Amino acid sequence: MRTMEWKNNCLVMIDQRRLPWEEVWVELEDEHAVAAAIRDMTVRGAPAIGVAAAFGMALAARRIPATGRDEFLGQMEAAGRVLRGSRPTAVNLAWAVERVLRAVRAVVGPADALAEAALFAAQRMADEDVEINRHMALNGAALVRDGDTIIHHCNTGALAAVDWGTALGVVFMAHQQGKRVHVLLDETRPRLQGARLSAWELERAGISYEVIVDGASGYCMRTGKVNIALVGADRVAGNGDTANKIGTYNLALAAQDNGVPFFVVAPISTVDLSLKSGDEIEVEQRDGEEMHSSYGARLYPAHFKVRNPAFDVTPARLIAGIVTENGIARMPYRESLAGMVAKA
Amino acid sequence: MRTMEWKNNCLVMIDQRRLPWEEVWVELEDEHAVAAAIRDMTVRGAPAIGVAAAFGMALAARRIPATGRDEFLGQMEAAGRVLRGSRPTAVNLAWAVERVLRAVRAVVGPADALAEAALFAAQRMADEDVEINRHMALNGAALVRDGDTIIHHCNTGALAAVDWGTALGVVFMAHQQGKRVHVLLDETRPRLQGARLSAWELERAGISYEVIVDGASGYCMRTGKVNIALVGADRVAGNGDTANKIGTYNLALAAQDNGVPFFVVAPISTVDLSLKSGDEIEVEQRDGEEMHSSYGARLYPAHFKVRNPAFDVTPARLIAGIVTENGIARMPYRESLAGMVAKA
Repeated sequence: MRTMEWKNNCLVMIDQRRLPWEEVWVELEDEHAVAAAIRDMTVRGAPAIGVAAAFGMALAARRIPATGRDEFLGQMEAAGRVLRGSRPTAVNLAWAVERVLRAVRAVVGPADALAEAALFAAQRMADEDVEINRHMALNGAALVRDGDTIIHHCNTGALAAVDWGTALGVVFMAHQQGKRVHVLLDETRPRLQGARLSAWELERAGISYEVIVDGASGYCMRTGKVNIALVGADRVAGNGDTANKIGTYNLALAAQDNGVPFFVVAPISTVDLSLKSGDEIEVEQRDGEEMHSSYGARLYPAHFKVRNPAFDVTPARLIAGIVTENGIARMPYRESLAGMVAKA
Repeated sequence: MRTMEWKNNCLVMIDQRRLPWEEVWVELEDEHAVAAAIRDMTVRGAPAIGVAAAFGMALAARRIPATGRDEFLGQMEAAGRVLRGSRPTAVNLAWAVERVLRAVRAVVGPADALAEAALFAAQRMADEDVEINRHMALNGAALVRDGDTIIHHCNTGALAAVDWGTALGVVFMAHQQGKRVHVLLDETRPRLQGARLSAWELERAGISYEVIVDGASGYCMRTGKVNIALVGADRVAGNGDTANKIGTYNLALAAQDNGVPFFVVAPISTVDLSLKSGDEIEVEQRDGEEMHSSYGARLYPAHFKVRNPAFDVTPARLIAGIVTENGIARMPYRESLAGMVAKA
């Protein structure tokens, strides 16, 4: 399932806030609309927002009046800042923006040639993303055996990418290889991506699953057979510390206490070797409204005080391996990850 | 705040399902109404459902026609089975029923004397519960210092008991002693008792707090100063393994990983020395509807598959101490708990 594409000079994407109730596709016409869609989580998932931002740059490029090259590049950089500011934790958002800028800078020619280069770069990134995810899925599927029960956090399926996904991409691939799997899906408060998006994707794919509340992961591992934990990542530091959706660290602790191997599935674009450790990762604090209410339904009074970090950092010591498109990084992560980044 | 009382030959209690939106008090007239109120969680919290069940026995006793003693006792035992069946995990529910039965059996006289004994026993248990909770709160408050941040799961305040509460009783006592505390409240999916009931109680008491999603406890401990974790219990096995609301085990793991001492606050009536370990504790599996919907608001489609265990078991090795009305039990728990039970 391809969840975003370029059509009629617009970026068309599925509105993830309307799922699982209805399948609505939205058309975005400029970088501000893309930044807003990233911020309000019409689109979410690290690879997906990277590609969306790249298309946002292509949209910006089309709308810049035919001015001089320097002014054009200056306006592209301004568009990049708008897009980068929409979600501070995701490293591949900045990476995607930078990559389009590089492609544009490499072209000598009139404004429409530069705009063409931006669009070409974005489309190439979308296609590459699908290819990268397919490779990650193949690498990860080797860890999954017939009959396994997998535990999973948030949503990391095709909705989180352009197609396939990261951790759920591994599940889809294992399923396609004929392995019978059962997936325990953390609901993933506050936005319930596990219950709303991952369950929706597994329903569509005909894969066996059960949604559990986030607090039940330890109980399920202690009392039942769980073979492997698979999660995505928003940012991986050089030492393997991994930022991912809030609750991932708690899941990793529960996995460790029950001897369940905990794997991160993330493309190389998520790896940020410039960060020595997870302590350097900025964690986005989101508005409390998404805790007080769930898609319009009020859960508790708006004046009740809340604290709403969007991500946490799982220390590398809790991670059995980091599955990338270039192989599975293992401890010590610094060397192993650097090797994979060099191959990319 | 006294949350249940005997009035006009009825048991009157606050309807916890309507909080925090409205303060509605319900009148229950017989044991079936009490069992239903326990099952549908109009009343919840281990001490509270114990006392409610005792009053349920008193209500049953009043309605038994003036028959022979054996038949009277037989009908009381039948009422006890109805009440005990309403929540299988809570040991003090069975304990409360048994205690009223014993009080009735000890009386020789006509049916109304037996009924009188049942009511007297129930009222005494309610008064004792308040006294026990006050003692627990005092014992626990000694662990809390001025300026501490406390992390907490579910609801364990006056709503969970007749007054004071268990873990939150400690918070109220520390506050009353003039210690400034800040409390991080796990939301506690699926029923959100932390966000709805604990926040409501702390708002009323003017105690500083923030609600967090259950998955954020690890993040909050890793990135901020958290001094102590306090939770209640539905059942404590002889070795100290503790059954409590689902998510407690995950919180205990996060506390351990961050060096935060994790204390259980529970009355002796919660301790079941007959259980060798937590493996023998039956964990109630509840209907999935309370995951799909939250008090009328649909969160995700009813056909999405879910698994909904109501409790988990935290292994004794993760517990720094068990605060009871007779002191704080410490490792090794078997001896320490047995000593406290003997004093009760």
